[in-house]
Amino acid sequence: MPSNPDDSPPLIGGPLVAVEVPEVVVSRLPQYVRILSQLLDDGVEVTNSQHLGEKLQVTPAQIRKDLSYFGRFGKQGRGYRVRHLLTELKQILGLDSEWNVAVVGVGRLGNAILNYPGFNPDGFHLVAAFDSNPGRVGQAVGGVSVQPMGAMADTVATRNITIAIVAVPSADTQSVIDQLVHCGVRAILNYAPINAQVPEGVWVRNIDPVLALQSMTYYLTD
Amino acid sequence: MPSNPDDSPPLIGGPLVAVEVPEVVVSRLPQYVRILSQLLDDGVEVTNSQHLGEKLQVTPAQIRKDLSYFGRFGKQGRGYRVRHLLTELKQILGLDSEWNVAVVGVGRLGNAILNYPGFNPDGFHLVAAFDSNPGRVGQAVGGVSVQPMGAMADTVATRNITIAIVAVPSADTQSVIDQLVHCGVRAILNYAPINAQVPEGVWVRNIDPVLALQSMTYYLTD
Repeated sequence: MPSNPDDSPPLIGGPLVAVEVPEVVVSRLPQYVRILSQLLDDGVEVTNSQHLGEKLQVTPAQIRKDLSYFGRFGKQGRGYRVRHLLTELKQILGLDSEWNVAVVGVGRLGNAILNYPGFNPDGFHLVAAFDSNPGRVGQAVGGVSVQPMGAMADTVATRNITIAIVAVPSADTQSVIDQLVHCGVRAILNYAPINAQVPEGVWVRNIDPVLALQSMTYYLTD
Repeated sequence: MPSNPDDSPPLIGGPLVAVEVPEVVVSRLPQYVRILSQLLDDGVEVTNSQHLGEKLQVTPAQIRKDLSYFGRFGKQGRGYRVRHLLTELKQILGLDSEWNVAVVGVGRLGNAILNYPGFNPDGFHLVAAFDSNPGRVGQAVGGVSVQPMGAMADTVATRNITIAIVAVPSADTQSVIDQLVHCGVRAILNYAPINAQVPEGVWVRNIDPVLALQSMTYYLTD
């Protein structure tokens, strides 16, 4: 098939359809943001797909393809303007917004999460915490007062919480996630080693150190 | 190009080269193992690419392609024998071995890691812990006695430690990883939000809740 001579989208011949961005590309974008922020901190104003590829451990061609989903950021041979690309990617990812987050489960892990200073600078504000253990309710952890599970619906609504971090035992995880979804939470970071089920329109990411370790042992067996 | 009629590898016409398995495929294998274990626990003896694809949220074609790197596991129309596939994948991933693991950094996060019961059943034994804070040295955390950083080389060698989990502040992470690599550690699970540099032959995986959250906000902005 001959390529379009001026490389512009073919406007004639069919309806213009928005291209769906593959999830793997979306999940790489935050890493672009982190690397670009770092470059800017280091005073680097221009970069290229070669350099970004090295940092991300993907090919330069992959970098160019990833970014092409969102328009034309670079000019052939001139590279990418770091500040511009960073601003655009942050906007695409919704990182120019502030997000209110709830933590469910305030055991050792929930405690470490609520005390982790890394969420706030990136616009994620841990504004509520829930636990089913009455002994934990009322405690202040990382500046947040732990509430009973029954307060979830009210608090999620009044604090405009769209994201939750779930740090409860595996056996309780699915039911906690169901509750959160019922309350209107649309994105869940799950720390239990289970594949949680959520309805369409709700997103889950898993933090799973065992899976991460298991993906390295492959290379250690020789 | 006509396909090889009996689908066997072309032994004539060039040297037989071992196919390198893409890292993305390797990193999916532990999820296969987890799902297959679950199926076996549920008494399921046979599965297929359709079902595995749903669980993993990839296409059935991707499942078949992933598994084809490691030989022929399924028969057309008959599906996969769960127990056999599980055993093979565990062996491929080195999960039929036991791995001794060190934890560096015993703050809130290191504490939660050392107390997490999920590593042991999967063959990862947290046998040593190191911290630069003299106040923490000598404490027993999760059944492990915290050692000073200076003990690392000896302990890594004598306890046959090949894997380390690094839970120190970002600013210290690269130098801690350098030390670990120097001591002979070959796989590192890093909890700090930095892209650590390691020499060839050493592997790093990052546990990064902020990146995971940022990969979902894309879907929440509308």
